[in-house]
Amino acid sequence: MEESSAFARRAIERKRDGLALAAGEVEAFVRGYLADDVLEEQMASLLMAGCIRGWSDGEIDALTRAYVASGRVLSFAQLARRTVDKHSTGGVGDAVSLAVVPWVAACGVPVVKLSGRALAHTGGTIDKLETIPGLRTALSPEELSSIVASVGCAIGAAGPELAPADKRIYALRDRCGSVPSMGLIAASVVSKKLAGGADAIVFDVKVGAGAFMRTRAEAAELARTMVGLARRAGRSAVALLTDMEEPLGTRIGTGLEIVEALEFLRAGAASASDARFAACCEAVASAMLSLALGVPDEQAVRMLREARASGAALARFEAMIRAQGGDWASVLRMAPCAPSFDAAALRAGYLVRADVVGLGELAREVVAAGGPLAGLQVRARIGDRVEAGSPLVRVHGGSAAHALRAAELFEIGASAPPPRPIVYERIG
Amino acid sequence: MEESSAFARRAIERKRDGLALAAGEVEAFVRGYLADDVLEEQMASLLMAGCIRGWSDGEIDALTRAYVASGRVLSFAQLARRTVDKHSTGGVGDAVSLAVVPWVAACGVPVVKLSGRALAHTGGTIDKLETIPGLRTALSPEELSSIVASVGCAIGAAGPELAPADKRIYALRDRCGSVPSMGLIAASVVSKKLAGGADAIVFDVKVGAGAFMRTRAEAAELARTMVGLARRAGRSAVALLTDMEEPLGTRIGTGLEIVEALEFLRAGAASASDARFAACCEAVASAMLSLALGVPDEQAVRMLREARASGAALARFEAMIRAQGGDWASVLRMAPCAPSFDAAALRAGYLVRADVVGLGELAREVVAAGGPLAGLQVRARIGDRVEAGSPLVRVHGGSAAHALRAAELFEIGASAPPPRPIVYERIG
Repeated sequence: MEESSAFARRAIERKRDGLALAAGEVEAFVRGYLADDVLEEQMASLLMAGCIRGWSDGEIDALTRAYVASGRVLSFAQLARRTVDKHSTGGVGDAVSLAVVPWVAACGVPVVKLSGRALAHTGGTIDKLETIPGLRTALSPEELSSIVASVGCAIGAAGPELAPADKRIYALRDRCGSVPSMGLIAASVVSKKLAGGADAIVFDVKVGAGAFMRTRAEAAELARTMVGLARRAGRSAVALLTDMEEPLGTRIGTGLEIVEALEFLRAGAASASDARFAACCEAVASAMLSLALGVPDEQAVRMLREARASGAALARFEAMIRAQGGDWASVLRMAPCAPSFDAAALRAGYLVRADVVGLGELAREVVAAGGPLAGLQVRARIGDRVEAGSPLVRVHGGSAAHALRAAELFEIGASAPPPRPIVYERIG
Repeated sequence: MEESSAFARRAIERKRDGLALAAGEVEAFVRGYLADDVLEEQMASLLMAGCIRGWSDGEIDALTRAYVASGRVLSFAQLARRTVDKHSTGGVGDAVSLAVVPWVAACGVPVVKLSGRALAHTGGTIDKLETIPGLRTALSPEELSSIVASVGCAIGAAGPELAPADKRIYALRDRCGSVPSMGLIAASVVSKKLAGGADAIVFDVKVGAGAFMRTRAEAAELARTMVGLARRAGRSAVALLTDMEEPLGTRIGTGLEIVEALEFLRAGAASASDARFAACCEAVASAMLSLALGVPDEQAVRMLREARASGAALARFEAMIRAQGGDWASVLRMAPCAPSFDAAALRAGYLVRADVVGLGELAREVVAAGGPLAGLQVRARIGDRVEAGSPLVRVHGGSAAHALRAAELFEIGASAPPPRPIVYERIG
């Protein structure tokens, strides 16, 4: 204890003074922490020093390795094919995973997706899937493997056995003000993906009012850090910076986002799907496919469009839901619940801004009050011309008060803001 | 707990981002920590952020107030006179307190000196005093007050009831690499002086190879911080930057340093006292006297010289030792113990540098082995011309091996380095 305490102090002092730690030092520090030889306050002190001084690539690689080594590491080698995973940094109305996992699988690439729960104002894929009666997300590695082997894809909850050190250290950072450190955020995300065993990873880094990264510069830095980290760990990786200045899809909720994905996958209803949601799904899915197969993006897009038009993507979604124990008939019957209230524009003009965090938080409240088929349906997009009283959002399963609050989350101005792309940049 | 944790996190985040905390926030943070509502890791995180970002005057004032408020605050109002205290940042062969406390008291200013123990390579006044048979330093505030009322001065151990928050936080900083922060060091020192109740404080900030502050710039920053802090808390304060490129007095040990002070106070033996030690004592004592009485320095020096020449200072030392229970006859019999070994110069030349930390550590070992009258006696000064084999240090109560090690702690060069003053600068 004495000796390890002296070791910890020396490492903290070097970090405090702006020096980089050796990889072995970082790994020993984390191992010591997990063995309770390095104290909570020593880890907190080191993380704060790194939060202010920054981290070298070598330090973050070592930290990520230590996170991975702290738990179970999955392997899908028995599939004998390159698997792909994707990760969104979190947004509102972001049902992309639900749509792209079966879609990419329908093109012949096995997708083992490990997902998380809702965090702050953003939604979580696991919470959404669990609205399907019977569906299980707590899948053992063996189950994941066998489902992927039979239907080509699966979405499981990233369990506590993957990178448990990250979980403990994240809780410490949360208590101690050291959450916003690019290196630590990247290590946290990437360690779980590495432990999840995917050969290729696409990072969907959300940017804007509804994202954790508010600026392009921050998002690009995080994207570069994650891509570099994953590649140095021997995985294929690419990141897309995508827009989160307004909800991505038109539904915000849990079960309602299953509906969003379902509508998108139904080839015949293609035109009914929201254009921004569809564009984001296609960008993410084509990146996954080209990364896993090594084909050009245009070819990946052609393959994807064909799989959607043919109904193969929808069939793969159905197969996955059934394989995970979900009741497909229930999925087909899913629809927004009553009563519904429209949030009306307070005045005429152009929609210039949306309080996306506020919409995400409102949707969580409405779902908590009204159940899995409650939530928000976005009826106007930024740049749209609206008249006083025209509907902006429909609140399902909530109250008129929710609708009044929703109306105040939109800013209406005299002229339309410039249009924004869905994908700002591709990194890697 | 939840609420105080959120409060703590917000404060840490602001400090992390380089913002200054409000005074009330700092005080609440420390109070929360002492009540175990703010966690060890949260305090560690805040201190590391401040260690890197620095602290505002307002933050350090508030921290110091919180330290003081955590324990007992002494008051010597019943003496109805301004009391004075002094603090040395720690050196080797630094018996100044033992000499100046009775000396200043002999000039009519009550001195309530609260002292500490040896820290790292430096000596501690309490350890030195405790070599006197019968002498007690664990004095209650009432005892301190009554001794000062009757003999004019007392030297007590700064007990655990003074600023206990500082003690707990210092231990945390030591574990977590946040010791070297000017603001925290100043708060630690000044809080104990404020709790000790002195109206005027002289800081003797040591600079050089044997000091915690190695450079003039660091020492000046600490001095300015401590003086500002004490003044804003309503005390008179001044700091002297004094030399610690070599041991201050000629004796390094515990009981041997009592001998150093005694020799200095014996007016008749004035010429036998070391010139550097005498100069430092006079600078510190005159600063104490002029600060407490509001008289010019020259007048303070005249008063001091008279009190020393008349034997009043020595008499005051005797009275203080007796009042604290010490056996004065034993003090008069104190002399370096046998056997003694001379550390001889390894070659001819000029003494250019001394490893003062090494000498301090060696003295501690020799005392540990040989008892309170063991230690080192310095026989050559930096700048002295030495011949191969001429004595540099005499080791009392140790071994020939100690003397061999001592010889290696001196660097001998071809020419004498420029002379150094004792007092580099007066601040405040």
